[in-house]
Amino acid sequence: MSEHVDPQEVMARLRAAAEPGAPPSAVDDLIAELHPADLAEIIDSLDPDERVAFFRRIPADLRAETLAEVGEGAWPALIEGVQDADVHELFGDLELDDAADILAELPSEDARQILERIEPEESREIAALMRYDEESAGGVMTTELVSVPEDLTADEAIVAVRNRGREVRDFYTVYVVDARQRLVGIVGLRELILAEGRSRVSDIMERDIVRVHPTEDQEQVARLIAKYNLISIPVVDESGRLLGRITHDDVIDIIEAETTEDLFRLSGVHEEEEAHASAAEIVRSRAPWLMITLGTSGLGALVVAQFESTIQQLAFIAVFMPVVAAMAGNSAIQATTVAVRRLALAGRPARPGRSLTREIAAGVVIGGIVGLLLGVCGGLWQDSARVGLVVGASMWLAIALGASWGAAFPLLLDRLGLDPAVSSSVFLTTMTDMLSFLLILGSATYFLVRLL
Amino acid sequence: MSEHVDPQEVMARLRAAAEPGAPPSAVDDLIAELHPADLAEIIDSLDPDERVAFFRRIPADLRAETLAEVGEGAWPALIEGVQDADVHELFGDLELDDAADILAELPSEDARQILERIEPEESREIAALMRYDEESAGGVMTTELVSVPEDLTADEAIVAVRNRGREVRDFYTVYVVDARQRLVGIVGLRELILAEGRSRVSDIMERDIVRVHPTEDQEQVARLIAKYNLISIPVVDESGRLLGRITHDDVIDIIEAETTEDLFRLSGVHEEEEAHASAAEIVRSRAPWLMITLGTSGLGALVVAQFESTIQQLAFIAVFMPVVAAMAGNSAIQATTVAVRRLALAGRPARPGRSLTREIAAGVVIGGIVGLLLGVCGGLWQDSARVGLVVGASMWLAIALGASWGAAFPLLLDRLGLDPAVSSSVFLTTMTDMLSFLLILGSATYFLVRLL
Repeated sequence: MSEHVDPQEVMARLRAAAEPGAPPSAVDDLIAELHPADLAEIIDSLDPDERVAFFRRIPADLRAETLAEVGEGAWPALIEGVQDADVHELFGDLELDDAADILAELPSEDARQILERIEPEESREIAALMRYDEESAGGVMTTELVSVPEDLTADEAIVAVRNRGREVRDFYTVYVVDARQRLVGIVGLRELILAEGRSRVSDIMERDIVRVHPTEDQEQVARLIAKYNLISIPVVDESGRLLGRITHDDVIDIIEAETTEDLFRLSGVHEEEEAHASAAEIVRSRAPWLMITLGTSGLGALVVAQFESTIQQLAFIAVFMPVVAAMAGNSAIQATTVAVRRLALAGRPARPGRSLTREIAAGVVIGGIVGLLLGVCGGLWQDSARVGLVVGASMWLAIALGASWGAAFPLLLDRLGLDPAVSSSVFLTTMTDMLSFLLILGSATYFLVRLL
Repeated sequence: MSEHVDPQEVMARLRAAAEPGAPPSAVDDLIAELHPADLAEIIDSLDPDERVAFFRRIPADLRAETLAEVGEGAWPALIEGVQDADVHELFGDLELDDAADILAELPSEDARQILERIEPEESREIAALMRYDEESAGGVMTTELVSVPEDLTADEAIVAVRNRGREVRDFYTVYVVDARQRLVGIVGLRELILAEGRSRVSDIMERDIVRVHPTEDQEQVARLIAKYNLISIPVVDESGRLLGRITHDDVIDIIEAETTEDLFRLSGVHEEEEAHASAAEIVRSRAPWLMITLGTSGLGALVVAQFESTIQQLAFIAVFMPVVAAMAGNSAIQATTVAVRRLALAGRPARPGRSLTREIAAGVVIGGIVGLLLGVCGGLWQDSARVGLVVGASMWLAIALGASWGAAFPLLLDRLGLDPAVSSSVFLTTMTDMLSFLLILGSATYFLVRLL
């Protein structure tokens, strides 16, 4: 069951409803039945030129939520496609943080015009939100929240929540502030309902609050919410005044966005590549990294070029080159992936030296096993213990050094204040390729060619 | 500020408090101040033999929450280290889903003994939860929830919530059931507080509920919660009876676990590798994939071995081998990463053929550009237009085919019901290596050697 809407099935039903024989209202009936998240999924799957027509058919009361859920690449066209009269209503229905995000994607002249057309108070708050960096706590918070003074009783707080709560959509927590609007505690709706009516809010509230400043990076916000199992996190200014809150659904979005970013960076894909990117956009998103790969693999090729005469004399050594390079590269990527993921989930480790020692030890062991295997195979194939030794020892060193470098590089980048995920496979494999070629061709030149 | 506890700083303070001169209670005072999530982080960072002693110092009322947060690898030792008398209290304090998870990690005889020692009702519910697959909705749900009959008024519902709610920890939603315990609606605590006291629960509840069966995969649960911005999701049996609920903090854990799994699989790391794995555990977790890499890179080497005489005659061609292989491999990994991530976030795309066409088109264009560059360089270096053509055309084809294969493989695996993330870089680069060597060495043999 799981109430999951299959977009392909909905599209088929939409097409059937749009057939000449069907009643003209059939499509609209179907659209009105759907959840905004499903409508957004359909819009994202449509071609850009079909999107506006579909969006216009969505009933006005579902449009704002649908708009907030579609991919940000579709926003400018959809806003442009809506009647001027409807823009006012649309932005009135949007949550303030979504409105700020959408306006930030529009040409600044269009955004300014829209801000002039909507309610002045809302307009001011949206403009304030737009000033924060998109990936900071301020950029993802909403200023819509429910707060009560600390000297109320639980019964009075419930009345206050009833008065203010109608204007605020989802909330599960009430913020408690002092006379100067400084956050002093939080009370869950559960605690408010369970409390004795005459008990003071200041007696039932939680005082030990996890909170962030608006400049905090969204990745750190997500980490705090995940670590402390929070439902939302308050945002306060330098003097502790309550500015806004970040809710659980935003956090899930942040976690997904940050993970995609890490994953894409590891593979050298530009993190803003959209789900429905055109071929030209795909080329633009991936070509830069491939050009870097071309340059860096050229470095590996330069190493090989130094040993042209060795290869001419011992052509069989070229057979081992890709094996050694692949093994060293994969060991390094394994170690880097684990290190990057650990940093993303847990932040800087308490004792980086220890885990590094373990990684190096593991690399030496794995390198030893693989080196022994490859050395025996190579020695038997070429019927030469010396070839076996050269090949096996190169393999051993290449894996041990590759794994150590793969584990250390992200920690080093993190120490330098850089994003560890940029230690992408491209850089790593360049390093391990050069290392592998140098080891196998160098040792072949020194120990085998000289003795021919 | 951000109230973030730095484990390194806490460890330093703990060490200072444990110095001979300090008052003996200083460490305990510091421990009692910390959040269970921070205590868990400290335990995870300790050596296995230090963990039990630290866990025993934690006050009884913080132990259950701390235990739920530590890495699952530490559970058996910590449970073993606790006095028998304390186990009863510990499991009484644990949420039922956490208790079931922890018992599942213990030797079955130990788990049985603990189940016999705790309250019979709780014991039955925990045993029932343990029957579900660990990665299914049933495996992550808790049976602690608040439900009310549909014929109550809002005021009566609040009284019911007060009576039942004290035993249930975090909840933000009340489930509405009919006389046969079938789920008919949900009411948020916000809606309950805002409602007219005499209005019926059945009039204010949301009837259009996203719900799952206990056998549903946890990844699908996480996807539904993320898509529909839910705070929790109810779990129902075949006849619609309410069995439990999955809450937002579990969902964040699921998303993190599933992402780690995808990322690790892409790199060939066993997904259960713990943050504090020993060197031997690292070897066990990574060696299997490296052995597969050894086998598969051996396939690439076999291709090279077929062309030994070509390499002997044209040693310079070995310089281009790693460049062509690296470019084809990276193009494939880029395309695969994007495809795997899309499948993870959005499920099967509505029109897979379209995105595949775009990927292939992009591969042909990028391949053309890179091939042209490499062909010109190669032609100039060897002073031969023919060499330039051979190198450039091989590069073009290798990238175009590599990118197409990288984009298609995850979709194919998904169609076959397999996890697309197993299309790991290991398999992909084997394919692209073999392809690259065959293209460059084959064309060199056919177009260059024959004409020497």
